[in-house]
Amino acid sequence: MRMVDIITKKRDGIALTDEEIRFFIEGYTHGTIPDYQASALAMAIYFRDMNDSEIAALTRAMVDSGDTVDLSPIAGLKVDKHSTGGVGDTTTLVLAPLVASVNVPVAKMSGRGLGFTGGTLDKLESISGFSVEMDGLQFIDHVNRDQIAVIGQSGDLVPADKKLYALRDVSGSIESIPLIASSVMSKKIAAGADAIVLEVTCGSGAFMKSERDAIRLAETMVRIGIRVGRKTAAVITDMSQPLGFAIGNALEVKEAIDTLRGHGPEDLKELVLELGSRMVVFAERAKTRQEARLLLEQALDQGRAFDKFRQFIENQGGDPSVADHPERLPQAKYQIELPARSSGVIAEMKADQIGLAAMLLGAGRATKEEQINHATGIVLHKKVGDSVAKDEPLLTIHSDSKDVAHVVRLLNTAIRLADQASRPALIHKIIE
Amino acid sequence: MRMVDIITKKRDGIALTDEEIRFFIEGYTHGTIPDYQASALAMAIYFRDMNDSEIAALTRAMVDSGDTVDLSPIAGLKVDKHSTGGVGDTTTLVLAPLVASVNVPVAKMSGRGLGFTGGTLDKLESISGFSVEMDGLQFIDHVNRDQIAVIGQSGDLVPADKKLYALRDVSGSIESIPLIASSVMSKKIAAGADAIVLEVTCGSGAFMKSERDAIRLAETMVRIGIRVGRKTAAVITDMSQPLGFAIGNALEVKEAIDTLRGHGPEDLKELVLELGSRMVVFAERAKTRQEARLLLEQALDQGRAFDKFRQFIENQGGDPSVADHPERLPQAKYQIELPARSSGVIAEMKADQIGLAAMLLGAGRATKEEQINHATGIVLHKKVGDSVAKDEPLLTIHSDSKDVAHVVRLLNTAIRLADQASRPALIHKIIE
Repeated sequence: MRMVDIITKKRDGIALTDEEIRFFIEGYTHGTIPDYQASALAMAIYFRDMNDSEIAALTRAMVDSGDTVDLSPIAGLKVDKHSTGGVGDTTTLVLAPLVASVNVPVAKMSGRGLGFTGGTLDKLESISGFSVEMDGLQFIDHVNRDQIAVIGQSGDLVPADKKLYALRDVSGSIESIPLIASSVMSKKIAAGADAIVLEVTCGSGAFMKSERDAIRLAETMVRIGIRVGRKTAAVITDMSQPLGFAIGNALEVKEAIDTLRGHGPEDLKELVLELGSRMVVFAERAKTRQEARLLLEQALDQGRAFDKFRQFIENQGGDPSVADHPERLPQAKYQIELPARSSGVIAEMKADQIGLAAMLLGAGRATKEEQINHATGIVLHKKVGDSVAKDEPLLTIHSDSKDVAHVVRLLNTAIRLADQASRPALIHKIIE
Repeated sequence: MRMVDIITKKRDGIALTDEEIRFFIEGYTHGTIPDYQASALAMAIYFRDMNDSEIAALTRAMVDSGDTVDLSPIAGLKVDKHSTGGVGDTTTLVLAPLVASVNVPVAKMSGRGLGFTGGTLDKLESISGFSVEMDGLQFIDHVNRDQIAVIGQSGDLVPADKKLYALRDVSGSIESIPLIASSVMSKKIAAGADAIVLEVTCGSGAFMKSERDAIRLAETMVRIGIRVGRKTAAVITDMSQPLGFAIGNALEVKEAIDTLRGHGPEDLKELVLELGSRMVVFAERAKTRQEARLLLEQALDQGRAFDKFRQFIENQGGDPSVADHPERLPQAKYQIELPARSSGVIAEMKADQIGLAAMLLGAGRATKEEQINHATGIVLHKKVGDSVAKDEPLLTIHSDSKDVAHVVRLLNTAIRLADQASRPALIHKIIE
């Protein structure tokens, strides 16, 4: 088998066989196939797409390229949740203790984030003492006992994806649906998921800008998941404006606590129930979505989800008192309000620019080496569709520096007022 | 400027600027742009094509990537001819002395061939003593005095093309019209051509299998040539069967001599007059094609083209007596006739398979390191459209080995007889 023939075949629009895909992934992982052939194939895939059988084969070959996590010592079906990312995405912080509180095991492997704000791990590390350092046995014990634990990434999971993603990033083939789908799904499967609930975001703050592309990606991932024997569903959500109110690490932890205590943002709560009820059904803790949703609402209302969060923090060495006293989370030196320059209705709050403003404040990393500032970020007071009077505060900037002139300028271009505007739907579509 | 942005731009169907193309070619030549980005861009160009302005910019940037030949010390306009290659392509051996005999300067830089038979240089080296080793001054003196000289490739002409072609060959983007066109044109321009006559072959023995692709390539090259200030024309020729009768190095020299003496194959003569008359007009040695053709026919009929060939051989250290005694050229040990297995009309003589048979006999190189056997090859006695009786010889195999069983099997599959078949047109189209 010659790699050049595989490239030419795909280039000419002919589907690749399982063997050809495996030959490519194995050879590329081991370095016998050079970058210049992999980048050419990735570009040919960008133009020619892949059918479901090819994407499933690619996903399987990528899973097999490295280590996999064995979660079988944990009782029950392990359901993982994945988001394609966004701005102010506090979902996991609420969802994980919530579903754990209804006996869905949450055995999560988590990494640090690059971009607007930190990843889930960075957010949790806002809590004094919180650590994801534990050995595999401890991790499994925690989940078997308390249904929830988060561990840092260990082992060499899906090395093919790491290598291929870095190559695509510098050779113009990131935006390929089959390559994104196999990248996401292979990582979830290698991390031991029996079932997967996907949140596919769309809009300015998301990887997929258009709803059409988000739906295509979601449909592809759901079909591939089912093909490789994993129950899979996807929720397409709006990321034209940030999710919830908080953007920043400690700020999002506080918002998660608020939500678990029943007074968080409505959109965040609704999304958590949408995703969570599917996880509960996949984990076979309820027969129908209606039943699952009721279970979750009760766990929220009766404080069991909140108690689970406190227990989770304590199990991982964190200070559990922050759950009851979120003011003990790191606080930025300055809280600066941004007033509305005129009265009107908010027509636009561009998620990408608001995310960028949070990153400028130190809440996110531009490069892997950068330190995250856990305290800084932005808290919105209004969202798209809300009315605002002149000089009324639109948001509060949490900054460790007094000079926020650049951030203000960026935020002012991100927010547009109009005479009227309607509230965008948070959930665009469900694919299952 | 970032290479990944250039790749993405082309991938998205947006034309590249001159600066972007130059950035790519310079960076790639100097090694600051890696192979994996170049192969991705080549694949994006394969799918998105390039407009004329982009191809011209690419051609110019490739010319500037290395040395160029200065032919200005040679009086008159220097016209070069290029063929996209074929089987039994004796054209240059006849054309060069023919146009030189009507005062068109032929200052040719020539390389060795890979493939079915040798290149023009290999063919000329069939003649005892013939050499292309000379310095630049000698070369120019020869052309100024006798209008003809051939020199081996020296200097580092178009290094960007060497590097990019080798990369495309292993990454699936050879078959891209803009990349082929810029590759051919940049080499001709770097070698000092003021005007270019192209022979673009099509059919089984050619690089372009379909007439449609050959026309697209020819049209592109002609437009690019004109855009970069070189008079350019192209003749689309049939390469479904070999050109002329001879396939092999010494065998083609003999056929060239026959043609210069007025008794060569009609198709070869016709093609030489088509190409040559355009060269004469481009070199401003005649006002019209009709006038140019008449000049060439007279030079052939009156033996001046033949005399020029003899002089050319002598100038380059070769034995001029072979012109009058072609039997002094190297001869293979065995001449084996291949009889027709039935009577009928020849419907097909697949050029690629006949070329391959010649290569198996030693007439061509499979790898750069191989030695050419100048004596071996194939001489056809019939061509498509000719009638043949059972057992009548179709061709003669010139071999240094007695065992030609494999070659015979290959030739038998290459030749198909039918009840009737018509002679294919040699010249499909003229682009000028």
